[in-house]
Amino acid sequence: MTNFKVGIIGAGPSGLAMLRAFESEQKKGNPIPEIRCYEKQDNWGGMWNYTWRTGVGKYGEPLHGSMYKYLWSNGPKECLEFADYTFSEHFGQPISSYPPREVLFDYIQGRINQSNARNYIQFNTVARWVDYIEDKQQFRVVFDSLKDNRTFEEYFDYLVVGTGHFSTPNFPYFEGIEDFPGAVMHAHDFRGADQFKDQRLLLIGSSYSAEDIGVQCYKHGSQSVTIAYRSNPIGCNWPEGIKEKSLVTHFEGSKACFKDGSSEEFDAVILCTGYQHKFPFLPDDLRLKTKNRLYPDDLYKGVVFNHNERLLYLGMQDQYYTFNMFDTQAWFARDYMLGRISIPGKENRTEDIKKWMDYEEQTNTGAEHVDFQTDYIKELIGLTDYPDFNVDKVSAMFKSWLKDKENNILNYRDQVYKSVMDGTQAIPHHTAWMDEMDDSLEKYLEENVEKAEAI
Amino acid sequence: MTNFKVGIIGAGPSGLAMLRAFESEQKKGNPIPEIRCYEKQDNWGGMWNYTWRTGVGKYGEPLHGSMYKYLWSNGPKECLEFADYTFSEHFGQPISSYPPREVLFDYIQGRINQSNARNYIQFNTVARWVDYIEDKQQFRVVFDSLKDNRTFEEYFDYLVVGTGHFSTPNFPYFEGIEDFPGAVMHAHDFRGADQFKDQRLLLIGSSYSAEDIGVQCYKHGSQSVTIAYRSNPIGCNWPEGIKEKSLVTHFEGSKACFKDGSSEEFDAVILCTGYQHKFPFLPDDLRLKTKNRLYPDDLYKGVVFNHNERLLYLGMQDQYYTFNMFDTQAWFARDYMLGRISIPGKENRTEDIKKWMDYEEQTNTGAEHVDFQTDYIKELIGLTDYPDFNVDKVSAMFKSWLKDKENNILNYRDQVYKSVMDGTQAIPHHTAWMDEMDDSLEKYLEENVEKAEAI
Repeated sequence: MTNFKVGIIGAGPSGLAMLRAFESEQKKGNPIPEIRCYEKQDNWGGMWNYTWRTGVGKYGEPLHGSMYKYLWSNGPKECLEFADYTFSEHFGQPISSYPPREVLFDYIQGRINQSNARNYIQFNTVARWVDYIEDKQQFRVVFDSLKDNRTFEEYFDYLVVGTGHFSTPNFPYFEGIEDFPGAVMHAHDFRGADQFKDQRLLLIGSSYSAEDIGVQCYKHGSQSVTIAYRSNPIGCNWPEGIKEKSLVTHFEGSKACFKDGSSEEFDAVILCTGYQHKFPFLPDDLRLKTKNRLYPDDLYKGVVFNHNERLLYLGMQDQYYTFNMFDTQAWFARDYMLGRISIPGKENRTEDIKKWMDYEEQTNTGAEHVDFQTDYIKELIGLTDYPDFNVDKVSAMFKSWLKDKENNILNYRDQVYKSVMDGTQAIPHHTAWMDEMDDSLEKYLEENVEKAEAI
Repeated sequence: MTNFKVGIIGAGPSGLAMLRAFESEQKKGNPIPEIRCYEKQDNWGGMWNYTWRTGVGKYGEPLHGSMYKYLWSNGPKECLEFADYTFSEHFGQPISSYPPREVLFDYIQGRINQSNARNYIQFNTVARWVDYIEDKQQFRVVFDSLKDNRTFEEYFDYLVVGTGHFSTPNFPYFEGIEDFPGAVMHAHDFRGADQFKDQRLLLIGSSYSAEDIGVQCYKHGSQSVTIAYRSNPIGCNWPEGIKEKSLVTHFEGSKACFKDGSSEEFDAVILCTGYQHKFPFLPDDLRLKTKNRLYPDDLYKGVVFNHNERLLYLGMQDQYYTFNMFDTQAWFARDYMLGRISIPGKENRTEDIKKWMDYEEQTNTGAEHVDFQTDYIKELIGLTDYPDFNVDKVSAMFKSWLKDKENNILNYRDQVYKSVMDGTQAIPHHTAWMDEMDDSLEKYLEENVEKAEAI
């Protein structure tokens, strides 16, 4: 049964994985359904499609991207490698384990450029509103074509939501922040350290954004970096120039006041306070409502919306695994839509979801979280023909990475790992990360070529 | 006939004018329809409800507000005075002609606080999607209650759109801007001059935003302000420290290159490139599509949507007149909905719209634009019982204001005007505007009281 129609919302890593999954089926000579993919931005890549803009985009839509200049992968690339398209295949040479954004974006594009996926995607087009038509068992989706300010409708038998969940800032208020004289922004609008050179910077938050923006600003010449945590400090061995403080209680002019009674003057504040899952185009009964966690409620196998089996979500989990997790989800989604995987009734699905959520509750440490997501990936891989890979080895790399960061937050990116997909050993980047100020693809590859030639 | 239901989207000056119009009818003992008003923000006042946030709001919606700290009215308050609620009635004392934002916000609130208007308004609620149900002749509107992340539907016989058109940035790209190292933002996200102290500031644009942000930053200590125009300079008598330059062609690092071949280094760039009319919640056939102009196409009498007579727009014009224009529109809209004003068929409406648009085409100077909008207001006032006022005198004040600005952009706010509503003569603010660094309501009124006592 392939005479049905699938709508995919978003052409980031998740949406592209969905297209890739169908494409791999088609290449085997099997029929696939009619597919349409819609992307708000003017290019694919989701988060990885960098924008210089802040706030809203060219057409006034909230910006998708949260990335910034000088962003280098904050995990080993060997942990996110596609099983069906390796880094070696793409670059034709070994590279380091922590490439900059542009290099990873190039890699994502390399795989999808092999196909005619672009033909399925309508860019500059945002999903505006979805109704589920019960008697037709179809979704009516209203899209807004941003370039020509024009709406249109499409009907789909299955709807795949791959819009990500690192785009809508969680943006809490702190008393007195409205009178802070310097720049105040959410990490979502941070575009690089340059404008904070020589400044005393306050970052509020204690997760990846605070850690990475803090280290970047330190590297690029901020006078000082203070990271204020709510519950627990990040707890790295910070160098002189970066420190952690307890909760900001309020601001008094340019002074931030902390829970420990101390206060300090700052030039700029960046709220690294995370993101919300937000689906403005979905009505209540189709809308995933969850905080950022490893196993969101209401998603059977992390993919099928429990209250409407024709609605699928990809990539909605908190993430250690990324690209290859989206792949395993997309392959599962494909086989489910093609009728190859049948799913149990709602009660049993709820039970299965609960089982995973209970398991998540038992996890506490970073290593345990990695184990959890490893188990999840393993289950999905077992259900489809996505190329099997040594997930346990990836899991071990994640744990090693956690330790590297704890040991030295400034040089963990100088470590190298080995691909579980094709055994390629990464080579160190010619310059220590702390000394490397150029994050362009050109510079990155040029230097690797030189190095390879020298060897 | 009042057993119908009216939905009002937005509780800014336009939406509040609509509520006020119905309220004034009710106070006369006349029946009014069922009314509901929905506001995206957590309070009324639209633009005048200042937010410290940039980009998106607490719930991830694009921010409505474009206002900033130290924003003082850039036109005489006597030009925007409500005919049915004067500044004297509100403040009980004469004040200056150019009050700061907080004072004007207080004034708006003063009028609406006299009523139970707040009961009609649902805050933190955004209109998500509208369908017109042809056979019911009703609008189905899906709202999103942001606080509880929950959607719901309402049906209305008339829909009034008062969402403004100074919220969605027009945000052009300039070659190389992605590599500009300093802060880059749209005027929409400008929140005050403090962060640009001692900086070399480039403003791109030549309208109110560029003019006002430029002067504010000059006043609050930017090292230099350069305003780059596209077609025509603003052409004020700029003081030393502010200058105008022709078009930016591109950026090279921190250098902006201009059409005249010159280039210059800057620390920050603010794009004062205007706003777009944007109605993401409306389908194509209900969506107003216009640039910012005095008489947008498709609006009969500037209010009734020509392609659906049950859809009304308020405040969609480019504006000299503001609060009192919204009032005249709201009174017209009320009487039209109540069946007291009948409108001609579509062809005749189109003709009427064309007549106004042709007239607009004939206008070139600021003074002519003022005359145009004066004529428009006069026509509306003649159609309802909105308190008549001397529009010609207001028109003369606008023209005088245009000259004041041309003469001296730094001190035009020290001029005083006389209310056409109650004859009150404004008093000069105790401090010249260039020396007044405190824009709080408290300070503003306190000093006026002292001054009045001293007299």
